[in-house]
Amino acid sequence: MSIRIRVGIIGYGNLGRGVESAIRQNEDMELVGVFTRRDPSSVQVQTDGVKAYTMDQLVAMKNNIDVAILCGGSAKDLPEQTPELAKLFNVVDSYDTHANIPQHFAAVDASANEGNKVAIISVGWDPGMFSLNRLYAEAILPEGKEYTFWGKGVSQGHSDAIRRVEGVKNGKQYTIPIEKALEAVRGGSNPEFTTREKHLRECFVVAEDGADTERIEKEIKEMPNYFSDYDTIVHFITEEELERDHAGIPHGGFVIRSGKTGFENENNHVIEYSLKLDSNPEFTASVLIAYARAAYRLNEEGQSGCKTVFDIAPGLLSPSSAEELRKRML
Amino acid sequence: MSIRIRVGIIGYGNLGRGVESAIRQNEDMELVGVFTRRDPSSVQVQTDGVKAYTMDQLVAMKNNIDVAILCGGSAKDLPEQTPELAKLFNVVDSYDTHANIPQHFAAVDASANEGNKVAIISVGWDPGMFSLNRLYAEAILPEGKEYTFWGKGVSQGHSDAIRRVEGVKNGKQYTIPIEKALEAVRGGSNPEFTTREKHLRECFVVAEDGADTERIEKEIKEMPNYFSDYDTIVHFITEEELERDHAGIPHGGFVIRSGKTGFENENNHVIEYSLKLDSNPEFTASVLIAYARAAYRLNEEGQSGCKTVFDIAPGLLSPSSAEELRKRML
Repeated sequence: MSIRIRVGIIGYGNLGRGVESAIRQNEDMELVGVFTRRDPSSVQVQTDGVKAYTMDQLVAMKNNIDVAILCGGSAKDLPEQTPELAKLFNVVDSYDTHANIPQHFAAVDASANEGNKVAIISVGWDPGMFSLNRLYAEAILPEGKEYTFWGKGVSQGHSDAIRRVEGVKNGKQYTIPIEKALEAVRGGSNPEFTTREKHLRECFVVAEDGADTERIEKEIKEMPNYFSDYDTIVHFITEEELERDHAGIPHGGFVIRSGKTGFENENNHVIEYSLKLDSNPEFTASVLIAYARAAYRLNEEGQSGCKTVFDIAPGLLSPSSAEELRKRML
Repeated sequence: MSIRIRVGIIGYGNLGRGVESAIRQNEDMELVGVFTRRDPSSVQVQTDGVKAYTMDQLVAMKNNIDVAILCGGSAKDLPEQTPELAKLFNVVDSYDTHANIPQHFAAVDASANEGNKVAIISVGWDPGMFSLNRLYAEAILPEGKEYTFWGKGVSQGHSDAIRRVEGVKNGKQYTIPIEKALEAVRGGSNPEFTTREKHLRECFVVAEDGADTERIEKEIKEMPNYFSDYDTIVHFITEEELERDHAGIPHGGFVIRSGKTGFENENNHVIEYSLKLDSNPEFTASVLIAYARAAYRLNEEGQSGCKTVFDIAPGLLSPSSAEELRKRML
């Protein structure tokens, strides 16, 4: 491939570094620069010849960047950044506040249309690949029921909640799908579950010296919204154990739909999609890269506006030509 | 929904009947007619007010049909029918001779462009949903390896092969994925398998009175292409047992990709898609229906030509609006 898609990374945390490493696996892409709110001289970019820049320098590099991949957070960064940058760049983000997607879409769509750019929002695995699988399965089996299970994986929000408990020095929370519930769904009986029946929560907690671990455990287990509706297991471990055994950011989950067909609804079908991820941010980054390719191509075709994974023909994600894909993969 | 998509079913075997029953689950669709090479008076259509017609009557109903769903076989019917009918109708077929897809595509594309119609070929689960999952997974994890396992399910071709053995009255063959191989793939070690290590073949055979079952078993197990590369289990049963226990047409399988990410390829990820189908033809029919909706919509937008599942944005498959999908499913 002679012309490579020139990518800018906006935000250089776990996700931004994941995008950087994913670009190396895609020969049709190259990294142009990393843009950060930190002091660029404090940032060590891993790619030879590529520098870190301030956010202020981004606009000046408008003509050197084909797609900007936005790697900030959904709470504060993306609601501002994506609409702002979609006026100037093709952009891809991983906005994941499900309830606010319609308003984020509207804001980004207006900007992208104004700038004649393509923006693809809410790209990743949930929202993202899980959403796609919900859609495909429902379109194929309209008379059915769909289930999403998450885990086993680290929930950042729940880990943060643990760390806010008095006497807690550090902690990590794993969301774990309950095998019995998964098996019931796979059996096609379309069961109904309470929250407690679908997932359990396992916490690894480092207590401060002399802290009352009994009180900490009770406070965690009874915490509303986060833990009180679940069966929660609390382990107290040392900081060294936490670092040694729980440094990773694994995640994953299952989207399962079971549905009926036939004149008498006599036949049952189960469609299951699952992910088992060693690194949540690196996998999300890999999905962002594939959709960055699609954003660039659609804009080259003359399209503009905001899109989601639902609007993107799958073939646009692959570096292979349509002809090659038909021959090799269909 | 006030205007419904008017569907014609071309060919009324298991697949055609599956399409008929699937239309009942989709309120935005209605069945206009069933077209058959048999004597229409011998065909009992299940839908009130809908008749069977000869193939010759199809052209005259051109203006009453929005999409023709082609339910014939890939060996003889579709290579002729799809290019012929794509001149006059939006069409969807389930052409599944993988090696010949490029030439089928070319023939259908020429016709569909000539007639300003949209044709979507090779729709179903493999080719179809399995192909899509291979594509998505490879685009996300380019440094990885993909595995397809089929079954447990009935292979029509292998069942036919059994029935051609002298002394065999009837028979059915199940393709079964080997659990140990599946587990090795899920473990992320990217194993290499021989044919024998991935699937086994289980045959239920009804022998003619007085036939030499030992010879039949040997002939089946040693049959080149079909059985000789596999571990094959042969059971002799009665016609009654075959009818009682093996009347269904179940199938399914697994598409699994495992791949690495990270600067040192240090993180592994497993993407798994699986189907467990009570009725292979009814599930295939349900996929055809969803793509028939997409074919109609694309043609309404002014598009024409041949497409595959790779070219179809997922949102086009759902009766819900893009806005509703974003709100409800993303």
